[in-house]
Amino acid sequence: MKKTLLISSPDTQGLVAKVASILYSHHLNIEKNDEHVDLEHNHFFMRTKFSGEIEDSLLLNELKASLHPQAQISLKNEEKKSIIILCTKENHCLGDLLLRHQSGELNAEIKAVISNYEDLRDLSEKFEIPYFCVDTLTNSREEHEQKMLEIIQRFEVDYLVLAKYMRILPPSFVSHFQNQIINIHHSFLPAFIGANPYKQAYDRGVKMIGATSHFVNNDLDEGPIITQDIIHINHTYSWQEMQKAGRDVEKIVLARGLKLALEDRIFVFANKTIIF
Amino acid sequence: MKKTLLISSPDTQGLVAKVASILYSHHLNIEKNDEHVDLEHNHFFMRTKFSGEIEDSLLLNELKASLHPQAQISLKNEEKKSIIILCTKENHCLGDLLLRHQSGELNAEIKAVISNYEDLRDLSEKFEIPYFCVDTLTNSREEHEQKMLEIIQRFEVDYLVLAKYMRILPPSFVSHFQNQIINIHHSFLPAFIGANPYKQAYDRGVKMIGATSHFVNNDLDEGPIITQDIIHINHTYSWQEMQKAGRDVEKIVLARGLKLALEDRIFVFANKTIIF
Amino acid sequence: MKKTLLISSPDTQGLVAKVASILYSHHLNIEKNDEHVDLEHNHFFMRTKFSGEIEDSLLLNELKASLHPQAQISLKNEEKKSIIILCTKENHCLGDLLLRHQSGELNAEIKAVISNYEDLRDLSEKFEIPYFCVDTLTNSREEHEQKMLEIIQRFEVDYLVLAKYMRILPPSFVSHFQNQIINIHHSFLPAFIGANPYKQAYDRGVKMIGATSHFVNNDLDEGPIITQDIIHINHTYSWQEMQKAGRDVEKIVLARGLKLALEDRIFVFANKTIIF
Amino acid sequence: MKKTLLISSPDTQGLVAKVASILYSHHLNIEKNDEHVDLEHNHFFMRTKFSGEIEDSLLLNELKASLHPQAQISLKNEEKKSIIILCTKENHCLGDLLLRHQSGELNAEIKAVISNYEDLRDLSEKFEIPYFCVDTLTNSREEHEQKMLEIIQRFEVDYLVLAKYMRILPPSFVSHFQNQIINIHHSFLPAFIGANPYKQAYDRGVKMIGATSHFVNNDLDEGPIITQDIIHINHTYSWQEMQKAGRDVEKIVLARGLKLALEDRIFVFANKTIIF
Repeated sequence: MKKTLLISSPDTQGLVAKVASILYSHHLNIEKNDEHVDLEHNHFFMRTKFSGEIEDSLLLNELKASLHPQAQISLKNEEKKSIIILCTKENHCLGDLLLRHQSGELNAEIKAVISNYEDLRDLSEKFEIPYFCVDTLTNSREEHEQKMLEIIQRFEVDYLVLAKYMRILPPSFVSHFQNQIINIHHSFLPAFIGANPYKQAYDRGVKMIGATSHFVNNDLDEGPIITQDIIHINHTYSWQEMQKAGRDVEKIVLARGLKLALEDRIFVFANKTIIF
Repeated sequence: MKKTLLISSPDTQGLVAKVASILYSHHLNIEKNDEHVDLEHNHFFMRTKFSGEIEDSLLLNELKASLHPQAQISLKNEEKKSIIILCTKENHCLGDLLLRHQSGELNAEIKAVISNYEDLRDLSEKFEIPYFCVDTLTNSREEHEQKMLEIIQRFEVDYLVLAKYMRILPPSFVSHFQNQIINIHHSFLPAFIGANPYKQAYDRGVKMIGATSHFVNNDLDEGPIITQDIIHINHTYSWQEMQKAGRDVEKIVLARGLKLALEDRIFVFANKTIIF
Repeated sequence: MKKTLLISSPDTQGLVAKVASILYSHHLNIEKNDEHVDLEHNHFFMRTKFSGEIEDSLLLNELKASLHPQAQISLKNEEKKSIIILCTKENHCLGDLLLRHQSGELNAEIKAVISNYEDLRDLSEKFEIPYFCVDTLTNSREEHEQKMLEIIQRFEVDYLVLAKYMRILPPSFVSHFQNQIINIHHSFLPAFIGANPYKQAYDRGVKMIGATSHFVNNDLDEGPIITQDIIHINHTYSWQEMQKAGRDVEKIVLARGLKLALEDRIFVFANKTIIF
Repeated sequence: MKKTLLISSPDTQGLVAKVASILYSHHLNIEKNDEHVDLEHNHFFMRTKFSGEIEDSLLLNELKASLHPQAQISLKNEEKKSIIILCTKENHCLGDLLLRHQSGELNAEIKAVISNYEDLRDLSEKFEIPYFCVDTLTNSREEHEQKMLEIIQRFEVDYLVLAKYMRILPPSFVSHFQNQIINIHHSFLPAFIGANPYKQAYDRGVKMIGATSHFVNNDLDEGPIITQDIIHINHTYSWQEMQKAGRDVEKIVLARGLKLALEDRIFVFANKTIIF
């Protein structure tokens, strides 16, 4: 059985030696080990994938006793994670995730889809995923947030995936899900923050458009970036065509960002990501 | 002999027919014809590369008589254009252009290099290009501008190329060279406008860095974009390493933008470029 | 109403003038005109998008009378084209096209899906597309081909799209659909022709993997290339992970290639494509 | 002082622990640690960058005593490596490396340039690098090889860089420099092996062209790939224009491959590279 050990700690000498020795003493076999020191903040990150048999609590206790008191240590097994997808009207990101889910490529269970519109109910239910519509017409701001939270809390989820969810989540909501909300931003952040980035990009006459997957913090579009990519365009694109072309890079970049999260490859520190 | 006809005009019916018929009546042979209509502004752009013998003034007069009174018509032959390169201390963009010049790949004569420092004199003179240093310590702002203009006016140049020229050109200077100044911006505009974009990008934790070649207008970093590209980076890059990695994309993007200009492929309209 | 005129002809002087003048004489308005001359073969290609009212046969006859006797002239309106998708077991390319179809992004009607297996029936029928399985166990080679042709001939289709159809189509079949079959090859042709290109790529230790959409001719993998793209990989990828990562570039490149075909942007000549 | 420890060894349990503990026992501080296990060959690779004071032989002996008898262990300091560049007539790769050398970006000393022609003597000497021409007209095959070796042996070099050296090196020559010769191949290997890949690519109608930096083994174009990249092209490119455009990707890919080698980031195993 394979497990992944994640350690984020103030840097001190001998960290790799201590961790590796503890693993070795239990006859655990390191298959992949990545390590990074943020020299600006003197902070240490380590991701170790190992095989072998060990009781989680035993290993964690031993590591805690041996490492820095402020070290954050977690141990992940290979069980599928659970996610909920939030979306609005566009089908490309949701559909792409549903297809990956269906083929078994997405190492996660999609527990539910939540939207502020009914448009994507049919698509979601085609793939037998429960769909919840919490509209913003009949619900006040507070009711909306409350109902969303209620639905989410019915499931035990690891990540919320904003698959073109076109509504700003209030800080009170976001605060429940620190580094658990992954968004696709339809631009290469930090350019074109805010509404209709394709129109902004068109007006500026840019020659490429991009997409950014990132964690959502309180400030819209300001969370830690996970991954980004672009496609080249030219003067023949209207902003609607830019938007259409942008969908391809959006869905790929969102899926890549989610995959990295599901594989426990991401550390968040100082509003940035370290990705192994 | 090959020539390139460039027409930018309010759109009216029959423009292609009129132009093509005039060329045909003189037994000129169209080798490549590109056309674009900006439907937002109802404006027409056409670039026609043709072979055959014709007196320029004859053709231009005939076209002027036939087309819209506000049409801008120009005729380019295949003679090498003349450029002056402005630079500061970094050698990668200047050196790249000097090498392309030496191999004959750059379809232009580099008439001179002008800098605010002495650092690149040696490199420039290695390649036998006259080097002028107009420093900003002994020269006042007005003297600096005046001396720069004097040097430039000694040569008849088609383009000024800012090859990492790290000083803002004042509007009074820029106004002499409408759509003739090509800059390399060390970022994918419009992100990270202003000083030290690599430090900005590092602090934001971006996963790619880019470069943009663009014409310089009065507003810094706001001129029409010619071409852009990016490279992917990760958390292991310090901002100095990002800057170092960025040099590769800077020099390539500047050379590409300049090449497009030298081949008479660019129209500027509404602060954007149409590139054929 | 907008139409697209496609002309492929031995090059002669005055072609653009003749065509544009005929269009102008009928008060048709050229919105986009692209032209290319293959100087190696002295062959002319022109794609003209125009608006205005004209009877197709009238315009075509006038053009035929005016142009070279070997000129190939066709006129396309903006009606949706019809396609049939062929697939085997993998869902990513089929699913991607079904989603684009559902959202209205794909400017085509998917008339049917045909497969040699039952695996993708459920997916296809979720999206209400008729699914036909012609297996290769109970059918002889001749029966298989015959049944495929029968199904296809029930519909009037413009293109057959091989969305990871993992069976070689015999020349007798292909000959019915000259430049009408679009395949996605899971590699950047011409590297790794044949079976399991990901295993081949892994064994060679390549640092990027690609995909190629192309028309299918008699020789497998040798038809005219439409579009290609790549993603970067590294030593941590097993060939199975390369294959998984490759799916993203496969589906995007197939969709791009099909889009170009559906928009009547592709000429095929001398086993290559000219794409406007 | 920083050093880099490289270990390539049959995989056994506890390797990371053993190495890290030895480093820790000498109060050495690991700044970056990368590790990979090739599960196909059960082989372990580790690159550890550390700071602190230690006598090289002491550390190496201790590691050798502790690790697998077949483990290959080496220790690199941060001293500049020495390289010799081989080239023929094209200036873009040589010039690019000379510029990087001049700016201090290239962490290496260029000891000499060797060519089979005189064409690039002037460029090389502009940058004060000794230039040796060993022509193939007046020298027999054996003399040519002998003279090349003699020149190279005057210097102590870490790598030979083939910067568009258009002559096949015989196995007897290559055998002297196992994993020390870095070539730029003007294609994305393994496509278009052999002469004039741009003409081959043109004839095949490809939509992108690439470049590959790789180590040279006995078989031409078959050595371990270091890095690859591509640029997109279209039907308007003649093969000469493809070649011209290809230069940009060639020089960047060669410089990237060399940089990885100079930073001691590359392991070669089973005709592939592992790059940390």
